[in-house]
Amino acid sequence: MKKFAFSKIGQKLTSSIIRELLKDVNVPGMISFGGGVPDPKTFPRYKLSEVAKDVLENEFAFSLQYGPTEGDDVLKEAYINFLKRNDNIEGLTKDNLLITVGSQSALYLLSTILLDSESKYFVSKPVYLGAASAFSMNSMNHIDLPLSEDGIDTDLLEEKLLELDKKGEISKVRFIYVIPNFHNPAGVTLNLERRKKIIELAEKYDLLIIEDDPYGDLRYEGEGFPSLFKMAGKNRVLLLRTFSKVLSPGMRLGFVIGHEILIRKLVMAKQAVDLCSPSLTQRIAGRFLEKYDLKELLKPTIEIYRKKKDLMLEELERNFADMEGVHWTRPQGGLFIWLTLPEGYDTMEMMASGKKNGVLFIPGSAFSIGGGCDNSMRLSFCLPSEENIIEGVKRLKKTVVEYGKEKGLL
Amino acid sequence: MKKFAFSKIGQKLTSSIIRELLKDVNVPGMISFGGGVPDPKTFPRYKLSEVAKDVLENEFAFSLQYGPTEGDDVLKEAYINFLKRNDNIEGLTKDNLLITVGSQSALYLLSTILLDSESKYFVSKPVYLGAASAFSMNSMNHIDLPLSEDGIDTDLLEEKLLELDKKGEISKVRFIYVIPNFHNPAGVTLNLERRKKIIELAEKYDLLIIEDDPYGDLRYEGEGFPSLFKMAGKNRVLLLRTFSKVLSPGMRLGFVIGHEILIRKLVMAKQAVDLCSPSLTQRIAGRFLEKYDLKELLKPTIEIYRKKKDLMLEELERNFADMEGVHWTRPQGGLFIWLTLPEGYDTMEMMASGKKNGVLFIPGSAFSIGGGCDNSMRLSFCLPSEENIIEGVKRLKKTVVEYGKEKGLL
Repeated sequence: MKKFAFSKIGQKLTSSIIRELLKDVNVPGMISFGGGVPDPKTFPRYKLSEVAKDVLENEFAFSLQYGPTEGDDVLKEAYINFLKRNDNIEGLTKDNLLITVGSQSALYLLSTILLDSESKYFVSKPVYLGAASAFSMNSMNHIDLPLSEDGIDTDLLEEKLLELDKKGEISKVRFIYVIPNFHNPAGVTLNLERRKKIIELAEKYDLLIIEDDPYGDLRYEGEGFPSLFKMAGKNRVLLLRTFSKVLSPGMRLGFVIGHEILIRKLVMAKQAVDLCSPSLTQRIAGRFLEKYDLKELLKPTIEIYRKKKDLMLEELERNFADMEGVHWTRPQGGLFIWLTLPEGYDTMEMMASGKKNGVLFIPGSAFSIGGGCDNSMRLSFCLPSEENIIEGVKRLKKTVVEYGKEKGLL
Repeated sequence: MKKFAFSKIGQKLTSSIIRELLKDVNVPGMISFGGGVPDPKTFPRYKLSEVAKDVLENEFAFSLQYGPTEGDDVLKEAYINFLKRNDNIEGLTKDNLLITVGSQSALYLLSTILLDSESKYFVSKPVYLGAASAFSMNSMNHIDLPLSEDGIDTDLLEEKLLELDKKGEISKVRFIYVIPNFHNPAGVTLNLERRKKIIELAEKYDLLIIEDDPYGDLRYEGEGFPSLFKMAGKNRVLLLRTFSKVLSPGMRLGFVIGHEILIRKLVMAKQAVDLCSPSLTQRIAGRFLEKYDLKELLKPTIEIYRKKKDLMLEELERNFADMEGVHWTRPQGGLFIWLTLPEGYDTMEMMASGKKNGVLFIPGSAFSIGGGCDNSMRLSFCLPSEENIIEGVKRLKKTVVEYGKEKGLL
């Protein structure tokens, strides 16, 4: 029927594989290491409720009304102060900040204003699926950079850039996309040397860096590195932040911090895409941030997650230390561990027996745009209880062993 | 600089003219007939505050967490009941409904899944600017249909369709976009005969109708007509509704009601565009709708707006009845009156003296994609006080007379 004739983009669209895979998450007895969602117990619900009452009853003329496309000035100011206090980022004005409907919207708006169908961009492999889906709406020409414990392979980045330059194609490259801290799905952190190298290369070829940092505030141990934005500034880096992992994903608040020229263009795109972010959730978050020290409030959350992360690492050690060729990342923060099995294991195929054994994980190929990562999986430790982490890793081991025997790999 | 190299869409983007024009809205003493925003006094702030407390404290595991891309089931169910009770729309399931970040997001998602750069679509002239900007992101090939007191010109629609069919271009037409009730900016309502005609033509050429109805619940007098969705069903019509004019725009809640094939595709696009709408505002609205009769609560709002509308019509009569060639629409609901001056008046040019005289309006050309409507303007009566409506129309008359004399039109 013609009335269901879709555009080229419309035809290409498919449902997120993760959302499909997680449909069984509510089956009774199922232990899920799947979703990357925070533990609801960490949401400061009573504090938010108190602030919400005030904002609804006394600031209704703002909080229930249309707001500026750029975002609520109260939240902007509070967030600029937050970045100054916690990240040593100085010199920002309101013109350097756009508030979006979560980071996904920021990624999508960036894709819209930066990418044509022939544009190229660098992403990690494995890649954050939300970024991949946003970027793919406008261009499929991603260039993969494998991840190691220290982040993306910057030697390869240098090589690829040189190659593109030689072919006269460097002007097609629109940005380098990095998740510097506790990468989703890999859990790894970009080290200082590589941060410097990326900036150096971006300077050399005059490229934009998109630094997506949803997890940086969830550091459980060790020392962090300065953000690329802090190191290279708004002329080189666009920083994405979000409240989804540190306050509440249900409020859908993402932040784009960058050069005013980029922010202004994003605002124009946002006018057409959703007009403005909800005034209500923005004003609640703004007043909340004025009133409370978010970093201080995060301490118990960090304590909860740190214990769960340590427990999962211990259980992986206990269950998989004897299996040759199995290794996993050891994140110092964030929500994810990336487990890699020997060649021959297909974690997508293993999903079915995982479900039968009562454990869910996300197969590695879900984080790979054009195939690959088949023998890896993403494990999230933040939502399951401690008992379920212990039991879940046991079930995972069982699933791996069953599969290995069935396929003659063990 | 290459790092600020924008995509073709990015380069094309400009700021909304209305947003630019309304920058002077806060100048002291200025009377604005400009913005199409509801009166904040009509927001049920205490009821919303009470519901918000409950939803935040007792339903935090949903309201502060990521939600399904499709929308909150509680709100979906409540809205399906609302449509059944108030619009006689039966037979809907949750698969026929998508909850978006306001109607703007719905329009944008539709544009994404339906329009390629060569696609054509029918819109009114003048056109709702938000729809025009969303559709233009993917295709500039709009076909204009002039508006009269009874809605878009359906004879011309028939003619144009016949013409396109003869040229073998009918397959390029993706939809007919209509605002059936109290059109923005024109204030007019599509009559029953024309509703039937549009459906007949859509059936004949197998076209989709997008029925955008933000204002239908704001009827101040007279009898309404059934919605095109009610008349022709989900196989032919996609219905857009919103809470922005009847509950709160700051909650950013839009509804797409239609065939499950279309809804599913919109959901896939939404995954890439913003992942999900805010759980918090959705759940608040859902519980609110379960608890209160929205139509009943709207009665005092309707009374306020009806009085303001009547007053503005009286004042226009008092001030402009003696001026030949000036006419205006007489809406039975909604937020807008469309005033047309004789040929030769350029309302965009008149903005400056309007501002000098202390009155703001939106020039007609702002609602025209490729020029036209120069001698018209949109007047909104819902936000100014009754005294300001009286004084504002006087200032408007003064502005018109000054301009007419200056240009030798009077």
